[in-house]
Amino acid sequence: MTTFTLPKPYLLFLGDVTDPRYAKTAFGLKDWAPADCVGEWVLNGSKLTTGLPRMTPSEAVARGAASVVIGVAPAGGQLEERWIAPMIEALEAGLDIVSGMHSSLEDTYQIAQTASALGRRLINVRQPDPLTVVGTGRKRQGQRILTVGTDCALGKKYTALALTKELRMRGISCDFRATGQTGVMIAGSGVPLDAVVADFISGYAEALSPSAPADHWDVIEGQGSLFHPAFAGVTLGLLHGSQPDVMVLCHEPGRDRLLGLESFPTPALNVAIEAYLNAARLTNRAARFAGISLNTARLDDVAARVALKAATKETGLPAADPVRGFGLDALVDACLQPVAALAAHE
Amino acid sequence: MTTFTLPKPYLLFLGDVTDPRYAKTAFGLKDWAPADCVGEWVLNGSKLTTGLPRMTPSEAVARGAASVVIGVAPAGGQLEERWIAPMIEALEAGLDIVSGMHSSLEDTYQIAQTASALGRRLINVRQPDPLTVVGTGRKRQGQRILTVGTDCALGKKYTALALTKELRMRGISCDFRATGQTGVMIAGSGVPLDAVVADFISGYAEALSPSAPADHWDVIEGQGSLFHPAFAGVTLGLLHGSQPDVMVLCHEPGRDRLLGLESFPTPALNVAIEAYLNAARLTNRAARFAGISLNTARLDDVAARVALKAATKETGLPAADPVRGFGLDALVDACLQPVAALAAHE
Repeated sequence: MTTFTLPKPYLLFLGDVTDPRYAKTAFGLKDWAPADCVGEWVLNGSKLTTGLPRMTPSEAVARGAASVVIGVAPAGGQLEERWIAPMIEALEAGLDIVSGMHSSLEDTYQIAQTASALGRRLINVRQPDPLTVVGTGRKRQGQRILTVGTDCALGKKYTALALTKELRMRGISCDFRATGQTGVMIAGSGVPLDAVVADFISGYAEALSPSAPADHWDVIEGQGSLFHPAFAGVTLGLLHGSQPDVMVLCHEPGRDRLLGLESFPTPALNVAIEAYLNAARLTNRAARFAGISLNTARLDDVAARVALKAATKETGLPAADPVRGFGLDALVDACLQPVAALAAHE
Repeated sequence: MTTFTLPKPYLLFLGDVTDPRYAKTAFGLKDWAPADCVGEWVLNGSKLTTGLPRMTPSEAVARGAASVVIGVAPAGGQLEERWIAPMIEALEAGLDIVSGMHSSLEDTYQIAQTASALGRRLINVRQPDPLTVVGTGRKRQGQRILTVGTDCALGKKYTALALTKELRMRGISCDFRATGQTGVMIAGSGVPLDAVVADFISGYAEALSPSAPADHWDVIEGQGSLFHPAFAGVTLGLLHGSQPDVMVLCHEPGRDRLLGLESFPTPALNVAIEAYLNAARLTNRAARFAGISLNTARLDDVAARVALKAATKETGLPAADPVRGFGLDALVDACLQPVAALAAHE
């Protein structure tokens, strides 16, 4: 399994991105590893912010930063050409570069040259081991939660991290299992699942969450969506390999169309639940949904509570807003339910 | 798009494999590119045969062979260690090596050294372009047939090739679109889809079958199975990217369990049809099944006809046996049906 040791603390690079949905890495690090982030770096006066202090690479170095993390991930995962000069600036200021993009930093000649001349490290987090691991479908011991979604980029990683935190606070043995570049940066280990060779998606997902004691919980970061025409294959392979006992459906109220794909509607919650259950049962007949996790970033507190009630009414399942913390206790209770029921029988 | 120019004719290497289902590459080449195959090479007296004359690398060179093709593909796609010495023998006899395995031939030090010393070529067919191509889900012009399966390794490539041949004989403009290493060897071009980066499965599938005249047919080689715990992700990504107008379900009567995974049953034909239709409709609402293609290798002619009738009774669709040629005309008619209906209206 790929494990990275990353040079911390980080300066978070936001570039000139304006849509926060393309800056998941930066927001994820700020939320879940705040002690590791000294500030953010924005180009061309973009108003997008993580709330961290803004600074240049030189200023970040003065405050102890060891690397700049490319905190934005446009579709396709390529480094924008207009970001090459800023990366050179970061290297010259004394920072290593950490990237979760599909393309290697080394592929850009000027960056490779400068890093080599200055002795800086270029770290590509999204590069899995060159192992070949075919899935087996064999049942593994331990409990597994997988977050799944009606679309990409709506809170699957955040939900998994919030559930992990709650489980830990209850004294339950658990691990957050990272499947994307930001998750790997936060956890310090994991598999960048969208970057593995297609034949081995399920095999890597199986390896990510190995057999564990019966009362141990893995909380696995979901990827993509079964309803996304580009990424559903990754989602399905992860689902089959994870063999989740429990799923949590992540959704953003009001997002009626897939992000960046206006001709594709997001599915109704119950349609999504049925599709995920059907697919999950191939490798775990007992798979079930514990509840719904809503991303209410565009709503106020009152509207968020209304949305949670509506989701519960629609699905009959508890609904939580992990960012505001609404309903999280009940969602965790629902995740744990069968273990509690089992204990009552003993 | 990756296009290969391969050194022909071939010597087909079967190694010590005994199960023909793991020798798809060799059988595919013998069936669909017989003029390019001078013979087969078997180790340790294995009884498996393509029917081609048996010979050593030196004998093959004497008959004009230019390369040895690794015609067997165990799960995982790795070169068996006991095949290294034979590969060295082939290089020393004067042959290049063509491989469709996941691992590069160069990864084996002795093979890389010998090839380099002798000036032989090592050609890894299963290595896609390092392009990054995210799927768009956008509808493309032209007609598309995709072969899908209740399991892996039961005739999806063969069926696609047989349909292509029939369409050509009817004077219909069409292309066979290869998605696996054998298909690429036969067609001379295509994408080894199981080897691409997981995030780009659908994108590659879209690129493989580009927009074409409205009356042009692409016949796309299917991969894996939605019901396979290791490979369903590739299958779903290919399905979404192909946007098939027509699907043909491939099945082997009597195969009640997945190949190599005894705890996984193969789905009933109608269950498979429903699952593929549900998934296909994400990118093509008009997707439909034309019929069933049965692999009756383990049956005699009479039993094959009984199996075809049973499949038609079960599904209400025409069923064909492309190897024996039974029912192929009717299956092709059913594939073309909407175009014919359209023409009648004009």
